[in-house]
Amino acid sequence: MDDRQLMQKAIDAARDGIARGQTPFGACIAKDGEVIIAAHNLVWAATDITAHAEIVAIREACKKLGTIKLGGCTIYSTTEPCPMCFSACHWAGLDRIVFGAEIADARAAGFGELSISNSRMKELGGATMTIEGGFMRKQAVELFEIWKALEAKPY
Amino acid sequence: MDDRQLMQKAIDAARDGIARGQTPFGACIAKDGEVIIAAHNLVWAATDITAHAEIVAIREACKKLGTIKLGGCTIYSTTEPCPMCFSACHWAGLDRIVFGAEIADARAAGFGELSISNSRMKELGGATMTIEGGFMRKQAVELFEIWKALEAKPY
Repeated sequence: MDDRQLMQKAIDAARDGIARGQTPFGACIAKDGEVIIAAHNLVWAATDITAHAEIVAIREACKKLGTIKLGGCTIYSTTEPCPMCFSACHWAGLDRIVFGAEIADARAAGFGELSISNSRMKELGGATMTIEGGFMRKQAVELFEIWKALEAKPY
Repeated sequence: MDDRQLMQKAIDAARDGIARGQTPFGACIAKDGEVIIAAHNLVWAATDITAHAEIVAIREACKKLGTIKLGGCTIYSTTEPCPMCFSACHWAGLDRIVFGAEIADARAAGFGELSISNSRMKELGGATMTIEGGFMRKQAVELFEIWKALEAKPY
């Protein structure tokens, strides 16, 4: 699969999450064009404030591959990973982060993000992964619109 | 319990982790002087790169209290939380971070930390918790010495 197809998996996961009453975030981890795992935010479902889509995907990828080293993998994230998730990508040794919407978009949608971009985190922290932002941004931002339009949010 | 006793719980958890072949990091979350949970790093035991002591403690505290909001709680961490764990503290709404050793000490012991201090993360991100570093630092740094002196490390 190519980048567009893999980001679509992350978007599909986010849409699935919204349908299940979760917040509008999805992520997909892939290696050599093959999906390892796609996941959505599970914070409310799991009563776990750390269960962002990227964290869930990284945990599941570790389990699935039986390793804590995810070198050679790319994470596709519907929104720019927050600093928690960015740092988890660093620890996992992911090669590449590809994201759609920006942290600023998530803040605008009402999420209490720490306002530090991935590129700033990389520069300050001395991380080495490649970061590509704004990929399929329109479809990614649309997730916030779908979520905001829900008449009754469970949370 | 006072701050010293609560930090001691984090140190005891780290020592327990070392005895079980884990890396030398411990954390304790408390509210009104009562321990909610003490935990050590479980990255290797759980094959989960996100299972830092603070993340484990936050997850378990959420479960135990049945909420994703940990306002009114303090986290005692043997080492300055890495940016992943710092950000998780922000998301959980913890009031206070108290830590012993610094990220620089962890780097010196061979851990591949992103070199961004908690005070810098707070300032850049617009977080609001109180941060107190260097608390019982001697005992906290000693954990790295114990860990480094192990003849055969499992990892």
